[in-house]
Amino acid sequence: MSDALLDVINAGVKIFDLGRPMFVGMPQSPNHPAFWHALPRRHGDTVRADGGSAANDLLVTGTHVGTHIDALAHVSQDGLLHGGADATAAGKGGRYMELGVHTIEPMVRRGVLLDVPAVRGLDCCEPSYEITPDDLDNATEAAGVDVGTGDVVLIRSGWGRRFSEGAASYLGTESGVPGVGARGAGWLRDRHVVAAGADTIAFEQLPAGRGHASLPAHRVLLVEAGIYIIEALDLEELATARRYEFTFVLTPLRLLGATGSPVRPLAVAATTEARDG
Amino acid sequence: MSDALLDVINAGVKIFDLGRPMFVGMPQSPNHPAFWHALPRRHGDTVRADGGSAANDLLVTGTHVGTHIDALAHVSQDGLLHGGADATAAGKGGRYMELGVHTIEPMVRRGVLLDVPAVRGLDCCEPSYEITPDDLDNATEAAGVDVGTGDVVLIRSGWGRRFSEGAASYLGTESGVPGVGARGAGWLRDRHVVAAGADTIAFEQLPAGRGHASLPAHRVLLVEAGIYIIEALDLEELATARRYEFTFVLTPLRLLGATGSPVRPLAVAATTEARDG
Amino acid sequence: MSDALLDVINAGVKIFDLGRPMFVGMPQSPNHPAFWHALPRRHGDTVRADGGSAANDLLVTGTHVGTHIDALAHVSQDGLLHGGADATAAGKGGRYMELGVHTIEPMVRRGVLLDVPAVRGLDCCEPSYEITPDDLDNATEAAGVDVGTGDVVLIRSGWGRRFSEGAASYLGTESGVPGVGARGAGWLRDRHVVAAGADTIAFEQLPAGRGHASLPAHRVLLVEAGIYIIEALDLEELATARRYEFTFVLTPLRLLGATGSPVRPLAVAATTEARDG
Amino acid sequence: MSDALLDVINAGVKIFDLGRPMFVGMPQSPNHPAFWHALPRRHGDTVRADGGSAANDLLVTGTHVGTHIDALAHVSQDGLLHGGADATAAGKGGRYMELGVHTIEPMVRRGVLLDVPAVRGLDCCEPSYEITPDDLDNATEAAGVDVGTGDVVLIRSGWGRRFSEGAASYLGTESGVPGVGARGAGWLRDRHVVAAGADTIAFEQLPAGRGHASLPAHRVLLVEAGIYIIEALDLEELATARRYEFTFVLTPLRLLGATGSPVRPLAVAATTEARDG
Repeated sequence: MSDALLDVINAGVKIFDLGRPMFVGMPQSPNHPAFWHALPRRHGDTVRADGGSAANDLLVTGTHVGTHIDALAHVSQDGLLHGGADATAAGKGGRYMELGVHTIEPMVRRGVLLDVPAVRGLDCCEPSYEITPDDLDNATEAAGVDVGTGDVVLIRSGWGRRFSEGAASYLGTESGVPGVGARGAGWLRDRHVVAAGADTIAFEQLPAGRGHASLPAHRVLLVEAGIYIIEALDLEELATARRYEFTFVLTPLRLLGATGSPVRPLAVAATTEARDG
Repeated sequence: MSDALLDVINAGVKIFDLGRPMFVGMPQSPNHPAFWHALPRRHGDTVRADGGSAANDLLVTGTHVGTHIDALAHVSQDGLLHGGADATAAGKGGRYMELGVHTIEPMVRRGVLLDVPAVRGLDCCEPSYEITPDDLDNATEAAGVDVGTGDVVLIRSGWGRRFSEGAASYLGTESGVPGVGARGAGWLRDRHVVAAGADTIAFEQLPAGRGHASLPAHRVLLVEAGIYIIEALDLEELATARRYEFTFVLTPLRLLGATGSPVRPLAVAATTEARDG
Repeated sequence: MSDALLDVINAGVKIFDLGRPMFVGMPQSPNHPAFWHALPRRHGDTVRADGGSAANDLLVTGTHVGTHIDALAHVSQDGLLHGGADATAAGKGGRYMELGVHTIEPMVRRGVLLDVPAVRGLDCCEPSYEITPDDLDNATEAAGVDVGTGDVVLIRSGWGRRFSEGAASYLGTESGVPGVGARGAGWLRDRHVVAAGADTIAFEQLPAGRGHASLPAHRVLLVEAGIYIIEALDLEELATARRYEFTFVLTPLRLLGATGSPVRPLAVAATTEARDG
Repeated sequence: MSDALLDVINAGVKIFDLGRPMFVGMPQSPNHPAFWHALPRRHGDTVRADGGSAANDLLVTGTHVGTHIDALAHVSQDGLLHGGADATAAGKGGRYMELGVHTIEPMVRRGVLLDVPAVRGLDCCEPSYEITPDDLDNATEAAGVDVGTGDVVLIRSGWGRRFSEGAASYLGTESGVPGVGARGAGWLRDRHVVAAGADTIAFEQLPAGRGHASLPAHRVLLVEAGIYIIEALDLEELATARRYEFTFVLTPLRLLGATGSPVRPLAVAATTEARDG
């Protein structure tokens, strides 16, 4: 037996880890349950007769915490979910069985990085900067790629560098946060991508001091277009490597009826081509 | 730019989902915090001025719950972790920073399925059956594969079919559960695999009525050999497809210092070869 | 300044602790989130510059867990809560603001113990035994007390002794559990008590093998009469002391909009009279 | 049967509720797991065959959250707990079995309110003000009470009014928070009180911008003297009523081995005397 995929894997791939570490106190949205972790049992607490012991964990978290994906059930507009289902009725029973995160197929598909500050000659987009369709066109051209049906598009704003500075800096409640608006979301919708991600907490542009009062890109993508949103990605290594096209891998936990899932997405590239890239 | 990996992906791959759904009441070990999920906000609770609303989740769980991976920090023997570190000292601070689940590199590597009941002419191994090195040899031969350094080996016992029957059946506290013992673990260690998985709750053989009083395969793999263990896999579709060699994908959440992580592993195969297989 | 209450307290009171200990693995209903506790920080993890350290806790639990009180919002009948409010509408927003547990006034009022097995010449009522109005009359007479408006009535079945035997014994899923039925609940309603409690997990009679399929006493008390229900009480010490009349103290946590609260109720008696009693 | 306590209760008592409401987003220390509440089941989700339904809760919280009591196990000094036990060893197993919150006896005993801003002619003590022994003496004298062995002393700083202003105001991280220091704690120790409480998040004085870097009053009370600390009390109604002496009621949850418990303490006074007071 031979497998073309395995042949490439065996020849060597470079894996870019796009997921952020999860720890107590990490930057996260205050709208969602805070991440907490503790060890109910530590080594040294008890030892079995055979000399073995097992430590374990208690985990509490929201699902829109850490690097995560939004299921279509996450957002409704005017009382309706994507596809027109009544949003209130869909949640009866405490689980979104039609559009919950368990309905997201595992992703092993083409991914594209659009490095917006790079084409704008910046390290990082300005706080509350709206990334425009022109910016997306320019980044696409600069990368020498196209964006098409079924792709996953990762939009770098540069804001991800603030993750290590803590919540006040990364959440940008005072300053606003850069990202696409309704127009940039329309650009993604028109290209029929499967998912779109960013290196910020809310994917889209947040005006200064406004918080999440209005999320037009979420509406366009999740409700109108049925496109998943991935947030809090770490795109720095990928950008530094100038790797604009890759195999994107994402496997949401199969949380029945949940509105999202923490994830650890990967960008994978064959080693030979990566050298040429 | 061209990428050999992407070329194969674009030509078509078949994805086998090896992760079980996670839901309140699913079979899980009573040694670990029970999985609970609730929606703090549902659609219909509040609507923003722009007509939008967002639903969200509160999640409580152990990390050795659902399909999951054991970090090396999970088990100690005679007070020591893999590599000889003092197990009690390693947990100071409430996180295992050296051998926690965050230290597991994302896996995109060769995987092999060993279908033990198939080579034994059974649908499912008997409760508390010890899968022997001979069984593993036979399954390897029948599959026409070899097992080598860096592989991930998935051992099917057939017990996974009981997951849908509920906790009493799947946990097998009364009946025992089939799996490898110390000898089968030694077989894996000798082949220098990176990780080993099974379709049962505890990976290894559990004698009837004994529970987890002694876990020799955990000791051999996690403590002695530094090989990760993956539990509660769904191997049925893969076995039915007789797909014995594939690209195995697993991305543990980057839970800093935790002893395990729920995961959703994949087996991926190029479509053309899969047809030939 | 002088206070008649304080004068009695200072003269000496005997406190009966009616709350059960709460610990991982204690008997609780599987319908509610399991109680879990872990220490995120232990002494020895870190020490401040001044030599001090603080340990703390992470707690996960349902509210109908351990000794607890049911708020009126806990149960609805035919879509309505006590007082006729629409039960679905009342929960909009994820909190029951009108009839949640935060609306229960702290209780410092007359309590009465009705020891049913004692008057029936038994240590413990039979599994699935229905405590009848006659039983309640007999217990009242034997205690030499009356039951009236504003009282809290604690009905002992003797089943509480099984708490220490673990969940299988105490929950009585196979055997059933003794308690009042609709008729006994009517007896309580007719006396206009404020709250009624028992030493079992569900307060009322549970037929063998039926679980919580039907809970008529909950309907009568919570929905029809607006009488709170207290469950999993420890009434053994009170019964042994033959203390049938006392000051009952109960302070639910002020959990905004929750349907119940774990509690630690007390029966308090002046020491002098307790000697006479 | 007659009971002097019940006679007073039946004659009428006034209950002052000293516990704060608990809700998602309430002010709490970021050092402890955040309070979260959700309804896994709401009315309207499912209805039993008999027309009944039950709603329930999922609760996540630290124990030093809301109005709460500190067990002696909460704090260590130089590696030792109150009484000299090794603090690290005491936590082995993940529970403090000797000095955990379950070892606190229910309190039904004399309580005294010391209204410090009232005697200083203020509405509220200044941020980071240290309440001195002289302040405590003056407040005692003004109240016309004495403080003695076995009492519970509640020290009002006026800061509790900020609870409703939200976390930034109430936590006072920037401003500091008023309270006793080591000297005030010594004053309490010398009087052999059982517990001491305040209307602030950390009981003791917090210098501006210092947070919890040093907590000398915790050391004196919890470690040296074995006196419990109660935090985040609501003392406003009691102060307005000028009720300086009362029966104090507090029943910590019996959380085995935990370092604290949320509570809902009461001040209770006989109605007749309250009118005279």
